[in-house]
Amino acid sequence: MQAVALYPEGPDLRVVEKPKPVPADDEVLVRTLHVGIDGSDRRIVAGDIGGDPPDGDDHLVVGHEAVGVVEDPTGSSFERGDVVTPMVRRPKDPPSRFAENEELDMAPPGTFHECGITGAHGFMAEYFTVEPEYLVSVPDDRADYGFFVEPASIAEKALDQAFTARSGFDWRPESAFVLGNGNLGLLALARFSTGDEFDRTYCLGRRDRPDPTIEFVESVGGTYVDSRETELSEFPAVYEPADFVFETTGYPQHSIEAVSALGPNGIVTLQGIPGDSTFEVEGGGFHSDLVVNNKGVLGVVNSRRPHFEAAVEWLQAVPTSLLDGLVSGVYAVDGVEDALSDTDETIKTVVSFEK
Amino acid sequence: MQAVALYPEGPDLRVVEKPKPVPADDEVLVRTLHVGIDGSDRRIVAGDIGGDPPDGDDHLVVGHEAVGVVEDPTGSSFERGDVVTPMVRRPKDPPSRFAENEELDMAPPGTFHECGITGAHGFMAEYFTVEPEYLVSVPDDRADYGFFVEPASIAEKALDQAFTARSGFDWRPESAFVLGNGNLGLLALARFSTGDEFDRTYCLGRRDRPDPTIEFVESVGGTYVDSRETELSEFPAVYEPADFVFETTGYPQHSIEAVSALGPNGIVTLQGIPGDSTFEVEGGGFHSDLVVNNKGVLGVVNSRRPHFEAAVEWLQAVPTSLLDGLVSGVYAVDGVEDALSDTDETIKTVVSFEK
Repeated sequence: MQAVALYPEGPDLRVVEKPKPVPADDEVLVRTLHVGIDGSDRRIVAGDIGGDPPDGDDHLVVGHEAVGVVEDPTGSSFERGDVVTPMVRRPKDPPSRFAENEELDMAPPGTFHECGITGAHGFMAEYFTVEPEYLVSVPDDRADYGFFVEPASIAEKALDQAFTARSGFDWRPESAFVLGNGNLGLLALARFSTGDEFDRTYCLGRRDRPDPTIEFVESVGGTYVDSRETELSEFPAVYEPADFVFETTGYPQHSIEAVSALGPNGIVTLQGIPGDSTFEVEGGGFHSDLVVNNKGVLGVVNSRRPHFEAAVEWLQAVPTSLLDGLVSGVYAVDGVEDALSDTDETIKTVVSFEK
Repeated sequence: MQAVALYPEGPDLRVVEKPKPVPADDEVLVRTLHVGIDGSDRRIVAGDIGGDPPDGDDHLVVGHEAVGVVEDPTGSSFERGDVVTPMVRRPKDPPSRFAENEELDMAPPGTFHECGITGAHGFMAEYFTVEPEYLVSVPDDRADYGFFVEPASIAEKALDQAFTARSGFDWRPESAFVLGNGNLGLLALARFSTGDEFDRTYCLGRRDRPDPTIEFVESVGGTYVDSRETELSEFPAVYEPADFVFETTGYPQHSIEAVSALGPNGIVTLQGIPGDSTFEVEGGGFHSDLVVNNKGVLGVVNSRRPHFEAAVEWLQAVPTSLLDGLVSGVYAVDGVEDALSDTDETIKTVVSFEK
């Protein structure tokens, strides 16, 4: 079968032939339909983050946003033909309580592999095998969009974390502000714009019109905020104080500045993973603003089954035309290099094994 | 009656004679026993924060950590002789939903007064009147310690916020690290050391032995951490990653650096309110550490009835000798200037109307 493999020396990405995997007794064989690409895939392929092959292998099969069809359910409760999406983390031995509790997203770094990211093969191959506890069902009519489940589950986890953190009092958020108009930012914006949690949504970018990302923001009812015109600290005065800020830029200043965009009791969730960066901050204001306004900042990484299931539910609830608006290119396996390139026209690219 | 009043011009603190207050139909008359002093009182008296008199007055009666005895319950359910402690915030008109929900601690700045801090008289007077919904009962045998309820309620609110934020998964904190060995830091350390939440506690200071604060830390089973020897980022390696960090220093670098003292899934609560301060930070590491480790930072200000009640419960559960260890001086009203002075021997000072 064909697979897209990263050889860390180089790094060098190749489409390779590998034997079709044979599922073990406790594994399901899945035929891959589509694999979405996100910013971390680009960083992995560039050699910036992750990319470690599994023990004993010289390459890592990439791809962690997949949807496929069960080809051989082995002894699981799945049936041949079921549409499924795999979760990303796998426990290292010995499994921690986070593995036992199905809360691997909260497990300490070093205690798990991440399929397609580091330490375990991903899903950008014609077939993959997976233990059934890491599969989540996708409705048949969303088979062509199932690669959105994993990134949408990050938005669900962020919502879960924010609402849980505020559950001790009568929090009534109205506005959500997404920092970043990349594929995760726009997907999250779509989620927050179409859900029940917020009345108004905003998305930060730095693009001139006409621009496909600005068009998408406005198509879901969001307001585009140009970071070249409005600093985050000015956001409350120019627009309104945000109750929830969802960061996707990986711009480390945003971990500080985003707090100034919040109203009282607001929550920032951070999702980006920047490298080291030293800079000046007005840290006294950051500190006291957090305190006197009961604000919070929560880091969010990965997600677990309830977040995947919530993402599937959302995927079912929205028109496919909305999801189509996020897909800027679908490529065959041989076009993976094009799928990985990133231009101003790129939103979500997909490698499809159906092409 | 005697009262301690701040005249903002100057600022000038005076012991003045005021008429004994007459309770309105919806008010209780309380005879004051003791009033604790904390760092914000010192800042108010110095003219750094708050200090605004109530509308129409030229002075502010200070003091917000009080315990007293009901002298006239008027129509309330309290009885003459009941020991009580008042909460601090009062709604401005028109009352917000935070007032109606008894969640004034989460109300936006500008929508409330704070007794003894700004906009409403405090409790450092022989008598004060208060609506009964702002009074919390204190057991008779803790009458001489009831001034601890308000500051201890801040530690309770921080615990509440942290545990609520982590309630979505199986969080198992073991270690708590208090930043600062002032009176709030040591009180919180005592709370965390004697409660069920943590197995090990630490307290950051910058003092040489022999020192009364170090002695107190060790007397409750905590470990003293000298900030001159161990930076916060080194804390996990030298001691252990903290699951919970409670900041009381008001040192704005701590709002950033405290995150590096946490282990995975850890929470920092910030309580200090520094002024403006610009400095350099390793902000990329701050950002990515929050994300990859699912860490969080929560600002915490003020507290509400359940936190006061939890603080009362704790006060009852610990030996009075522990509480005595926190009191470095008890002064008569005429000694208020001494009570407000702050030396290396100062922990908690108290103005007592029983002296």
